[in-house]
Amino acid sequence: VSTGGAAFLRARRPEHKRQRYEAILDAARELAEAGSVNAVSLADIAERVGMHKSALLRYFETREEIFLRLAEADWREWADAVVADLDGLTDASDTERTAETFARSLSDRPLFCQLLLHGPLTLERNVSLDVVRAFKRAMMQAASDVADALHRALPDLDRSACFELLAMTGVAASGMWQAANPPPVLVALHAESAAADGNGTPEVPGLSDFAGAVARFVRVYLAGLQSGRVPPA
Amino acid sequence: VSTGGAAFLRARRPEHKRQRYEAILDAARELAEAGSVNAVSLADIAERVGMHKSALLRYFETREEIFLRLAEADWREWADAVVADLDGLTDASDTERTAETFARSLSDRPLFCQLLLHGPLTLERNVSLDVVRAFKRAMMQAASDVADALHRALPDLDRSACFELLAMTGVAASGMWQAANPPPVLVALHAESAAADGNGTPEVPGLSDFAGAVARFVRVYLAGLQSGRVPPA
Repeated sequence: VSTGGAAFLRARRPEHKRQRYEAILDAARELAEAGSVNAVSLADIAERVGMHKSALLRYFETREEIFLRLAEADWREWADAVVADLDGLTDASDTERTAETFARSLSDRPLFCQLLLHGPLTLERNVSLDVVRAFKRAMMQAASDVADALHRALPDLDRSACFELLAMTGVAASGMWQAANPPPVLVALHAESAAADGNGTPEVPGLSDFAGAVARFVRVYLAGLQSGRVPPA
Repeated sequence: VSTGGAAFLRARRPEHKRQRYEAILDAARELAEAGSVNAVSLADIAERVGMHKSALLRYFETREEIFLRLAEADWREWADAVVADLDGLTDASDTERTAETFARSLSDRPLFCQLLLHGPLTLERNVSLDVVRAFKRAMMQAASDVADALHRALPDLDRSACFELLAMTGVAASGMWQAANPPPVLVALHAESAAADGNGTPEVPGLSDFAGAVARFVRVYLAGLQSGRVPPA
């Protein structure tokens, strides 16, 4: 066990604590962006930021809290970008531009897509009630702001249908992101199938083009909501 | 380390090997149904079936293979049930009964829903190319059979749109299953919100009713595909 060294000195002043807190989040973000959320351990983060694991645990309860805090920040950042894009649409009910806004904003943010996927499955499981409450409130506020902007952009769609479109797009996008980013053994299987000249495993159509798949999902789901054939939820 | 005992005798005859193989799958299924796929370890399965972990590894590469084999069987069983239901519809283009068939067949199979969710995320990651190839072929055959039955039930929808409806319903259902089965800390948060009399964290609407959420998804997505407003993929 190492002792001493500047990195291991305990931060005592509030601004130093804040710097440490942000440095830990930055390190986790860089590691996850370079690899995947699932593969980043608390030890990896501690090593990158140059702190002992025990020191890091004075700032965050668990690795899951670190990634849930990143998800909180990324929901806000994504929502602000989407609201600005939707409010910039010059034609009311421009469904094509609405679909593109979702597709582009998500495909530009692979870490956010990863966090959408891992949030419910793992990150919300190893944190305290206080942490999950803060995350859910921030997420719902961000989602609510996007639903409001959707309602301004698509005035013929009622507010609850706008929220539903957003919720279903989030659910579908996290699954499609996963399908578009297969593990190595699936990449090998796809290569084998391609080499077999079409006699191999058929692909789920469209899922290798994540942005295209999200845009199509939004177009189809929105057309369904606007069809008048399905009563409000 | 224990030695001897009937359970630890090595199965040498093919029918005994087959019995062991099936007993391992049954044990994994029972454990996952009582808890969750994620929480069941190889050691848990070995203990339940009364074998050493090392003996169990003569039958399966990893715990992920065991669950992927269960997923393979469950895709087939689910597809056969859905095909029989869809082929039993007396009115062509009965979209309401189609939506109900998906909703009921999935909500009746919580382990299948879990496997849909965990398949791409974890189960396909710790297995060999041979195992993932067998799984993907079985899955694609089952999905293809369901898409054919959908095309017979909804003759105005072309075959590729039928496949798309199935694929998107699978993606959405696995996400909705997860939202409908929250971890303890979220259950506590929901209880707190309810106690605060509506001033707490708002809910994603409809996601506490899994079957209802799946049925609504199918209705809306199908109405979108049939709207004529979105060109074929």
